[in-house]
Amino acid sequence: MASKHLIQPRTLKGFKDYLPAAMIPREWLIETARGVYRSFGFSPIDTPALEYAEILLGKGGDESDRQVYRFVRGQREIALRFDLTVPLARFIAQHEHTLGLPFKRYHIGPVWRGENTQRGRYREFTQCDFDTLGTDGMLADAETGLVIHELFRAIGFERFTIRLNNRKVLSGLLETLDLKQQAVPVLRALDKLGKLGKERVTEELVSAAGASPAQCRAILEFSAIQGGPREILDAVEPRVSGSPLGAEGVAQLREVVAGLEAGGVGQDNLQLDLSIARGLDYYTGTVYETFLGDLPDIGSVCSGGRYDDLASTYTKSHIPGIGASLGLDRLLAAMEELSMIEPVATPAPVFLPFFCADRGPDYCRLAMSLRRAGLATELYPNPRKLGEQLRYAGRRGFKVAVIIGEQEWADGTCQLKQLESKEEERLPVSDLVSRLLELLAP
Amino acid sequence: MASKHLIQPRTLKGFKDYLPAAMIPREWLIETARGVYRSFGFSPIDTPALEYAEILLGKGGDESDRQVYRFVRGQREIALRFDLTVPLARFIAQHEHTLGLPFKRYHIGPVWRGENTQRGRYREFTQCDFDTLGTDGMLADAETGLVIHELFRAIGFERFTIRLNNRKVLSGLLETLDLKQQAVPVLRALDKLGKLGKERVTEELVSAAGASPAQCRAILEFSAIQGGPREILDAVEPRVSGSPLGAEGVAQLREVVAGLEAGGVGQDNLQLDLSIARGLDYYTGTVYETFLGDLPDIGSVCSGGRYDDLASTYTKSHIPGIGASLGLDRLLAAMEELSMIEPVATPAPVFLPFFCADRGPDYCRLAMSLRRAGLATELYPNPRKLGEQLRYAGRRGFKVAVIIGEQEWADGTCQLKQLESKEEERLPVSDLVSRLLELLAP
Repeated sequence: MASKHLIQPRTLKGFKDYLPAAMIPREWLIETARGVYRSFGFSPIDTPALEYAEILLGKGGDESDRQVYRFVRGQREIALRFDLTVPLARFIAQHEHTLGLPFKRYHIGPVWRGENTQRGRYREFTQCDFDTLGTDGMLADAETGLVIHELFRAIGFERFTIRLNNRKVLSGLLETLDLKQQAVPVLRALDKLGKLGKERVTEELVSAAGASPAQCRAILEFSAIQGGPREILDAVEPRVSGSPLGAEGVAQLREVVAGLEAGGVGQDNLQLDLSIARGLDYYTGTVYETFLGDLPDIGSVCSGGRYDDLASTYTKSHIPGIGASLGLDRLLAAMEELSMIEPVATPAPVFLPFFCADRGPDYCRLAMSLRRAGLATELYPNPRKLGEQLRYAGRRGFKVAVIIGEQEWADGTCQLKQLESKEEERLPVSDLVSRLLELLAP
Repeated sequence: MASKHLIQPRTLKGFKDYLPAAMIPREWLIETARGVYRSFGFSPIDTPALEYAEILLGKGGDESDRQVYRFVRGQREIALRFDLTVPLARFIAQHEHTLGLPFKRYHIGPVWRGENTQRGRYREFTQCDFDTLGTDGMLADAETGLVIHELFRAIGFERFTIRLNNRKVLSGLLETLDLKQQAVPVLRALDKLGKLGKERVTEELVSAAGASPAQCRAILEFSAIQGGPREILDAVEPRVSGSPLGAEGVAQLREVVAGLEAGGVGQDNLQLDLSIARGLDYYTGTVYETFLGDLPDIGSVCSGGRYDDLASTYTKSHIPGIGASLGLDRLLAAMEELSMIEPVATPAPVFLPFFCADRGPDYCRLAMSLRRAGLATELYPNPRKLGEQLRYAGRRGFKVAVIIGEQEWADGTCQLKQLESKEEERLPVSDLVSRLLELLAP
């Protein structure tokens, strides 16, 4: 067998392995999101990775955008899901009568897109979505923001901003100004305000949206309104009161803001921004984005909004809803950059070296007693030299080693070594659990 | 849009959706397994769903067995992983120097096989594997059994049997009997002992393995040895002492049994069975299977064993190890049959109806105060009639509803309704958290 030709171990371009040091914070973040979603009554679902291509792409759907992995098997054209929203639409259309509405679900799972990998994007990534379907009540919109707020607090952030908008307000203004048909070029121009300044944006409003000087002035005044959410709404209300849509947008925002404030979202974490253009073709009311105070440039790490009719491709039932999605990979990259992630490659804090070869069962017994006390413990499997075992433990990132040799087995003591500080202490084995719980308390 | 042609919502044959009532116990079981794996120091990893077909199948590998999903994209032949063991072998070969050995990992994720679906099998299913790589120490083998033991206890089983074997023992016997080359037909015949009885098996040993009457007698005597693990080992030892392989198998089993007993595995949960044939072509030493006392016929729900050289397709490094895999879907089916799964479609115990339309923020505030006390709470999003909201809550499986109308908001009380017993009580809102924690304590 020595001359056997080896296959070079490697992953496909755009795909990657997660080693423990990357996977441990990833699992922690997913567990944290799951815990917050569940605390609001969102239920887990899962759907297949593979579906009929027609289901995922629609008839004659344009797959080039999404770079869908698609292939033929037997008689069937099948594809790998490229998001969790299209499967949700199919799912709710198929199971509506079993599930009943309203229906609150979360869905955490991998999706695949054969995108250009040059921008540091991967072709397989995990989405963490939550949605409330079958309701147009603004309490659902408020609770969506509360989920985002609780989630970022649970992760450990204090400095973050939830940006809130309702697309109806700007639409209402444009209706009032007789520019309703020009929403897309107006938003596109407004989006550049920070970069280009008022004058250049005015030029674009004139050239691309055909706006008059008065219309330009009104739009720029509108986008310059600043202050707390209520101040902004008070200033905006009279400007859109001529439009039922605009008035509805303001009223909805008032309800959402009241819910967010009652639910504990402070002024520092909430910002009303009536020009957020996100999801132009998709969201119809409330829109959310979330920015990190210490790393705003990485963009929104949790975004979502309200849609009018989710599943019209598959059912005549009209199913409105609201949802958002945590940008897992982007957030992990940010946490890494902000040194919020401890570089460890083991989920266990306690390391138990094995170095009296004939005492295997005794080590097993001790390890189990620590585990049953809630102390995750790795027992080294071979009776190697202690130094070698401790170097292994240091590389992995264990917090403490519990060292017991023949002497200690005989007299019922152990040596406890903190692996970073190298501090050592000797104590009776009978005190070990309580001492470890104390040392490892968060 | 009314006349738009709808696409029928459906999943591919052999694939299925997980609705909340199925997904909640599934997530719980995965979380339980993860918790047990972590308590032993196994670290999480993940690998891509898609890999080079050559990596997954080997050069000229036979894919028909596994019914691999395989397709061409661009210049590349790619495939969906059909298990987590081949990716582990590729992973350890690729990252050996970063990871270091020994290396303990768990990996929980979906795999895909285009199998015949007639036997109730699905083409997408989840594997929950754990392995210890890079060691031949029997403590790793003992700890593998301890993981299984802790896992089934954590799930809630008391009546289960971990069947243990070491393939070297029977090989040693066959060596002693000069039947080493006939291991496969001998094991195949022995496997039918329960069904066919001694006489028919003897016939098969003669016809298929060419065994003499004395050889047949020795084999049947061997397989009839019964008792506790130590009794069996004492009875077997002299029969295989002529074979170094057999003697090593017995010595290894003694070490493993001692570790299991020291780690708290009781006589009721452990059975030595020297004829387990599992993984004939794969496992080389210790073998584990796990059977449920109340549902033995569904077969093993957690199996594994020791292998000599995991990654020889990709590296010259010799990497032995031991691992096992929880049969998630089979176990969930068993738990369903044993009524161990509560039929609920929500992860939240508390339901908060919304029925004073102008009190939205107050409901948000109350819901958040319950959530922050650890009480998962769903707030209904629309101010519908109370009866309708309570029917919704009953269908979902909430435990209690906290009912607050205008009267209650005014006087600071609430009505607490247990949804199954219909018991009702009135109490001050200030006592609500402590009363709910008491009511919902496990």
